[in-house]
Amino acid sequence: MKSNNLAALGEFGFISRIAASVNNGIGVVTGIGDDAAVTALTPGMQLLTSTDMLLEDVHFRRCWHDPYRLGRKSLAVNISDIAAMGGIPRWATLSLAIPAALPLDFLDEFTRGFLAMAGEHGVALIGGDTCSSKQGLVISVTIMGEQLPELVLRRSGARPGDEIWVTGTLGDSAMGLRLAEKGEGVDEFLLSRLLDPTPRTAAGIALAGSGLVTAMIDVSDGILGDFGHIAELSGVGGLIRLADLPLSPQFLAAAAGTRSFHHELPLSGGEDYELCFTAHPDGREKIVRLMKKCGVEATPVGIVASSPEVAVLDAAGKSFHLSHQGFNHFAS
Amino acid sequence: MKSNNLAALGEFGFISRIAASVNNGIGVVTGIGDDAAVTALTPGMQLLTSTDMLLEDVHFRRCWHDPYRLGRKSLAVNISDIAAMGGIPRWATLSLAIPAALPLDFLDEFTRGFLAMAGEHGVALIGGDTCSSKQGLVISVTIMGEQLPELVLRRSGARPGDEIWVTGTLGDSAMGLRLAEKGEGVDEFLLSRLLDPTPRTAAGIALAGSGLVTAMIDVSDGILGDFGHIAELSGVGGLIRLADLPLSPQFLAAAAGTRSFHHELPLSGGEDYELCFTAHPDGREKIVRLMKKCGVEATPVGIVASSPEVAVLDAAGKSFHLSHQGFNHFAS
Repeated sequence: MKSNNLAALGEFGFISRIAASVNNGIGVVTGIGDDAAVTALTPGMQLLTSTDMLLEDVHFRRCWHDPYRLGRKSLAVNISDIAAMGGIPRWATLSLAIPAALPLDFLDEFTRGFLAMAGEHGVALIGGDTCSSKQGLVISVTIMGEQLPELVLRRSGARPGDEIWVTGTLGDSAMGLRLAEKGEGVDEFLLSRLLDPTPRTAAGIALAGSGLVTAMIDVSDGILGDFGHIAELSGVGGLIRLADLPLSPQFLAAAAGTRSFHHELPLSGGEDYELCFTAHPDGREKIVRLMKKCGVEATPVGIVASSPEVAVLDAAGKSFHLSHQGFNHFAS
Repeated sequence: MKSNNLAALGEFGFISRIAASVNNGIGVVTGIGDDAAVTALTPGMQLLTSTDMLLEDVHFRRCWHDPYRLGRKSLAVNISDIAAMGGIPRWATLSLAIPAALPLDFLDEFTRGFLAMAGEHGVALIGGDTCSSKQGLVISVTIMGEQLPELVLRRSGARPGDEIWVTGTLGDSAMGLRLAEKGEGVDEFLLSRLLDPTPRTAAGIALAGSGLVTAMIDVSDGILGDFGHIAELSGVGGLIRLADLPLSPQFLAAAAGTRSFHHELPLSGGEDYELCFTAHPDGREKIVRLMKKCGVEATPVGIVASSPEVAVLDAAGKSFHLSHQGFNHFAS
C-alpha cells in the first residue's frame, strides 16, 4: 500500500485526526463524534441547506488540483450557495469515499484546505462520513447557514425594469480550464479562479441586508443559464448586454490568442461562483458602494424584461446567439 | 445509450421529475429549486444533522439490491442516526452520481423507494445534487432532525450500574449478507433486514421523552463496537451477556447450519439499525411498556461497569473473545 498508512490509521483514527483540528463554531452544541451533530440556530433565523458532490475525473483531476486547493474548493462551492441566498454560512458536513492508494498526505492537505476555507467564512465542520472507494475520490459536502426570514433572497423575486447585476468578473475559471485542458501555460490568476474560487459571503449578506435586491443566484453554470433560472422562477425575461460583461485583464489577454472563446466563456463558461442579482435601478449607487465595502466590484449587465425570453445583445444592439448554454451533466 | 433516456431528460429534467413527486413537509419554507432550501425549526428545538454515503460495490450491489429497497435503505440508515439521538427526523438532501448506463427506470424506482421511506417517517426531501459518474452509483444523503435541547440523547451519559438495552433482534442483516454472498438461499425476513431496515424513529423519540435513558447509539457496526462508543464517550465499560442477545427465529434457523456465525454476527455483524441505550435498572418496567407501544421489543443485554473494558460473558459466565470487532472501511 505504498507510503499510505490510512489502512493502519483506520476509519475512526482518520475521523479523530480531523476532529482534533476542528474548532467549535457559533451554535455548535455537539460536533463530530456522536450519531448526529447538535446545533442551535440564532433565535428568529431560518435554516438554509445546500449540498454538492465532487467526483474525481468529472469535477476535478488530481493532476491539476493540488489537495489543499481541492479542499478549499469543495467547501467554497457550497458556501457560494448560502451566499446566493444572502445567508450566513454556519456548519458543514464532509463525506469522503477514498481510494485505497490515495496517500494520507493528500488527505491531510485536503483537510487543511477545507478547514482553512471554513475558518475564513465562519463555518464549523460538524460531521461527515468516510468510506473506501474502489474507484476515484468522491467528495460530498452539505452546508447549512441561517438568515432572518424576511432577508432571505430567492431566485423568484425579479421584476421587469430591475437591473441585472453580477459581482467580480466572468469567464476566468472557464478560460483557465480550457487552457489547462489544452496543456498550455495558464496565467496564475485564471488558474486560481478555477482551482480556488472565493465565495461571495460578505457581499451576499450585505445585499440581503440592503433591502434593495429582488432575486439572487450564484453563477456556477454561466450567467446566461443562471440568470435564466431567475427569469424562469420570477416569470420574467431579460436582456444581457455582451459589452458590459465584466472581464478581467488576464481573461482578455488570454482571449486575444483564442478569439472564439471571447463571448462563450463569460456567458456560459461555468464555475465563476460570482453572484448574479436583480435590483430596481434606483438602488444603483448604494449597491456599488455596498459592494466596494465588501471588497468586490459589482456591474450592471442587463435589464429584466416582462417577455419570457432571455436575450443577449452585442455592442451594436444585435441579438447574439450561443450554441452551448451551460453544462448538462448527462449530455451524451 | 440503451433504453436510457437520462441524457435526453438532462440534469434539470431529472431534478424537476423528482421535485414534482415531493410533498412539502413540516417547516419547509422553500424546498427543491433554489440555491439552498429554507426551513424553519420548531421554536425552542435544536438541529440534529447526520450524513451517510453509499457506494456501489462497497455498500451495495445492484445484483442484490433492487432499486426500490435501495432507495428506502439510503434514507433509512440516515433516519436511524436521528433516532439514535432521540430526534424527530424532518428534512433530507439526496445527492446522486449516476453512471451513464444506469436505466432511468432504476432511478425512478430508487426515488419511489426513497420518498416512500421519507413519507413513513415524516421526512421531506428539500434538495440535492446530481452528476454523472464514470464508475458506479454513488448515493450521499444528509438528514436533519430536531429535538428539545434537554431531550437530546448522546453517547456520553452512561453511568456504572445502568442496564444496557437493545431494541429488536441482532445479527439478522449480517446473516442475510453472509448467506447472499455464499449464493445460498436466504430467508425473506433476513434479506429484508439487510435490504430494507426499519429505523427506530418512534422508539427513539419515546425514549428521549421518557427521561429514563442516559445514553443511546444506533447499532450499525455491531453492538460490541457500538456500545464501545458509548463506553468510551461515557468513560465507562460494561459487560454484555451473550445468552441474552435477542435473536430472531429466522436467525437461529439459519445459524443451525452455520454454527461459527452464531456468536460473531449478533455481536459485531453490522447493519442491525437497532437502538442500543443505557438506563438505570429502576426504569426497566416502564421501558418495556414504552417500547411495546412503539411496536418494538427491547431487551436488557448487559450492565454498565466503572472499569474501562467492555467484556462479553458466555452462558457459563466466562469471558468470550471475538477476533473481529466491527467493520473497518480501510482495513487492508
